Amino acid sequence: MNPIWVRTASRRYAVHVGRGILGSLPGLLARHPACRAAGGSAVMVSDASLFAGPAGRAASALERAGWRVSRGVLPAGEAAKTLSSLDKLYGFLLKSGAERRTPLVAVGGGSIGDAAGFAAATYQRGIPLVHVPTTFLAQADSAIGGKTAVDHPLAKNAVGAFYQPIFVLADVETLRTLPRRQLMSGLAEAVKCALVFDPAFARRLAARWPRVRAGDLAELEHAVRTSVAWKARAVSADEFDLAGKRELLNFGHTLGHALEWATGYRGALHGEAVVWGMRAALELSSGRGWLRRDRPLADALLDGLAAPAWPRGLASSDLWAAMRRDKKVRAGRNVFVLLKRIGEPARVDDVTKPELAAALRRLGVTK
Amino acid sequence: MNPIWVRTASRRYAVHVGRGILGSLPGLLARHPACRAAGGSAVMVSDASLFAGPAGRAASALERAGWRVSRGVLPAGEAAKTLSSLDKLYGFLLKSGAERRTPLVAVGGGSIGDAAGFAAATYQRGIPLVHVPTTFLAQADSAIGGKTAVDHPLAKNAVGAFYQPIFVLADVETLRTLPRRQLMSGLAEAVKCALVFDPAFARRLAARWPRVRAGDLAELEHAVRTSVAWKARAVSADEFDLAGKRELLNFGHTLGHALEWATGYRGALHGEAVVWGMRAALELSSGRGWLRRDRPLADALLDGLAAPAWPRGLASSDLWAAMRRDKKVRAGRNVFVLLKRIGEPARVDDVTKPELAAALRRLGVTK
Repeated sequence: MNPIWVRTASRRYAVHVGRGILGSLPGLLARHPACRAAGGSAVMVSDASLFAGPAGRAASALERAGWRVSRGVLPAGEAAKTLSSLDKLYGFLLKSGAERRTPLVAVGGGSIGDAAGFAAATYQRGIPLVHVPTTFLAQADSAIGGKTAVDHPLAKNAVGAFYQPIFVLADVETLRTLPRRQLMSGLAEAVKCALVFDPAFARRLAARWPRVRAGDLAELEHAVRTSVAWKARAVSADEFDLAGKRELLNFGHTLGHALEWATGYRGALHGEAVVWGMRAALELSSGRGWLRRDRPLADALLDGLAAPAWPRGLASSDLWAAMRRDKKVRAGRNVFVLLKRIGEPARVDDVTKPELAAALRRLGVTK
Repeated sequence: MNPIWVRTASRRYAVHVGRGILGSLPGLLARHPACRAAGGSAVMVSDASLFAGPAGRAASALERAGWRVSRGVLPAGEAAKTLSSLDKLYGFLLKSGAERRTPLVAVGGGSIGDAAGFAAATYQRGIPLVHVPTTFLAQADSAIGGKTAVDHPLAKNAVGAFYQPIFVLADVETLRTLPRRQLMSGLAEAVKCALVFDPAFARRLAARWPRVRAGDLAELEHAVRTSVAWKARAVSADEFDLAGKRELLNFGHTLGHALEWATGYRGALHGEAVVWGMRAALELSSGRGWLRRDRPLADALLDGLAAPAWPRGLASSDLWAAMRRDKKVRAGRNVFVLLKRIGEPARVDDVTKPELAAALRRLGVTK
C-alpha cells in the first residue's frame, strides 16, 4: 500500500499503514539518508512489556539486518513522561554512544512516543526519530505531526517540542492485543476526524460500528489510514499549530483536556475525556443553531464510543477554571472548535461561562 | 546602525549591535508580530547579579512601556545549565501564567542564553525568545544561531534544541564591567572568525590589539559586529549544523571541547580552551604544508589572547579519548577544521592520533 505523506517546512515524511508490515522496518531505515552515516547503530525505546512483544520483534528484525540495537526501557504509560524519566533516557543514550545521526526508534503508545520523541528532539539537539505506534490512538493520531512532550508536576505536556519523525510505521496487527477500553478511547480520535472533516467517513463508521468495535483489522486499518490522511493534511498546512487547520484537530479537546486535568488524570482515558468534550461541543453547536440535521449521526457515533459516566461532582465551573491553563489559551481566551455541520467546523473564541454551563446542563451531566 | 540579519528556514531575525541601545528593547518587542497577542506580559530570565544591573534596567524599561514582567532567576554560570535548574524554570513559567505567545527575554552570558533559550524552545513546545547577551562571547557568538542546551552529568550540552530567537539585542555598553579574563576568552571567537573567514579583520585586530584588549568600546563594537556578520552568514547557510559552512565555526573547537572535557571544565574558560584548539589546528595545518606565509599573523593574534598554561599532565592521548565524545563525531571520526591560508579553511576527517601527538609535541606542550 502507498504511504501517506506529511509535508512540513522542516521535513517531508511517509506514514506507512498496513497489516504485518513491522518487518519492513530495517529496509525503511537503511534507505533513509539521515541514517546512512550512523555506522549501523540504532537505539530502540519502548517499555518492558512491549519489548516482550512488537518492540522485541522489531529489534530482532533490525539485528538480523545487521544493525547494532541498544534497548532503552521506559516505564509504561504516563510515568514515561516525567523529567526524571527523561534524564535517565538521556543517560542511556550517552552510554549507548548514540551520535547525532543514530536513529531512535520509539515503539509504543502515545506516552512512549511523546517521551522518546522529545528525547530524540533534544538529545544532541536532535537525532533521527522513527515512530512505530502500537495503539490505535498513536497510529491514528499522536505519532503523526511531530508533537512531543513530557509533563511537569504543574501541567501535563508543559514541556515539549515540535519534532517530525523521519517516517512512521503503523502495523495494525499490533492492535490485536490492545485492550478494548484502549481501542475505544483511540477510536474517539477517528470519530473526531470524521466529524470535523469527512461526512463520508462518519457515515461509514456509523454503518460499520459493530465490526469496528469488535476490532476487525480491515476496518481498523481503514480508520487509521483515513484519520492519518486528515491529520497529515492539517499538519502539512500548519506545522506549528499556530492558527488554522491544525487547531481544528482540537475539536473536543478544549473541554476534554480540562476534564482530564480537573480529575487529576485519574478518571477517564484521554479518548474518553475527548468524547465528553465532543458531546459538549455538539451541544454548544446546537445551542448556536448549528448542526441541526447532522446531530443524530454525530450523536450515534459518540454513543458508539461508550465513554464512562461523567465524573461525579465535576461542575461546569471546575472545567472553566481548568481551561484557563490550556496551551491554546490566547490572551486569556479559550478557543473552541464547534460544528456548523459534519465536515464544516468553526473556531470560536467567545464561548462564555454561562453558555458552557447551559450546554452541560442540557446534556444532563451538571446541575 | 542597521541590524545584521540571520535568515534560516525556521525564522528571519535581526541582530542589533550598538552602544547604549538596551532602552530600545520595549519598542522592538512591541512591534514584533509574535508578541502582539501576548496581552502585554513578558518573562525575563537572568541571574541575580545581572538583575541588579542590565537585566534590572531592561525589565524596568519594559515596565515603563506598559509590560507586566515576571522575573525568573537562574544560578550564575554553568550551574544554570542543569536539568534540575531547568525544571525550576518551567515551574516559574507555569506559575507566571506564561502562554505560547508570551516572550521570554534572556539577559546574560552564554550559560543563561543556553538554558533560558532551551526553556523557551521547549516550554509549551516553544515561546518567542529574545536574546540580550551581556558578555563578549555571547554577543559575538553564542546568542547567534539558535543553539540552546543544558548539560547532562555525563556530557556538556548533551541536551538541547535548535531554536532561533525573534531578535537579538547586543548592547556593548554592558561589556564595560566585564572581567578582563572573560573579555579575552570571548575575543577568541572573534579571532576564530578572522582566521577562518576574513584576512582583513585579522589584520585589523592584530594592528589594534592594544585598544581591543583595553576594552575600547568602539573596537569591541566593531569586533562584535564583524563576528556576528560572519556567524549570521554561516548559520543562514546551514541552520542545523549538518555539513558545510556552520561546521567551519568549529575551528579550534574539536580540540578545545576535548580539553575542557578532559580537565572537567575546571581549568580553562571556553575561549581559553579554544585558543589551545586553534594553536593545535595551526600546527596541524603547518604539518600538512599549509598556512606558510600567514602563520606569523595567526600566531600573533593567538599570542594576543594570552591563554593560560597548558593543563599540567594533560597528554595527547587524553584529548584523543575525549574527542570521541564530541557531538560532531560521525561514525567514529572527528572532523577538524584546518587552515590552508587565513580565510581559506579546510574540513578534514583524517587526522590521526600520531599526527595530533606530533603537532602537540611541536607546540612544546606534551612530550
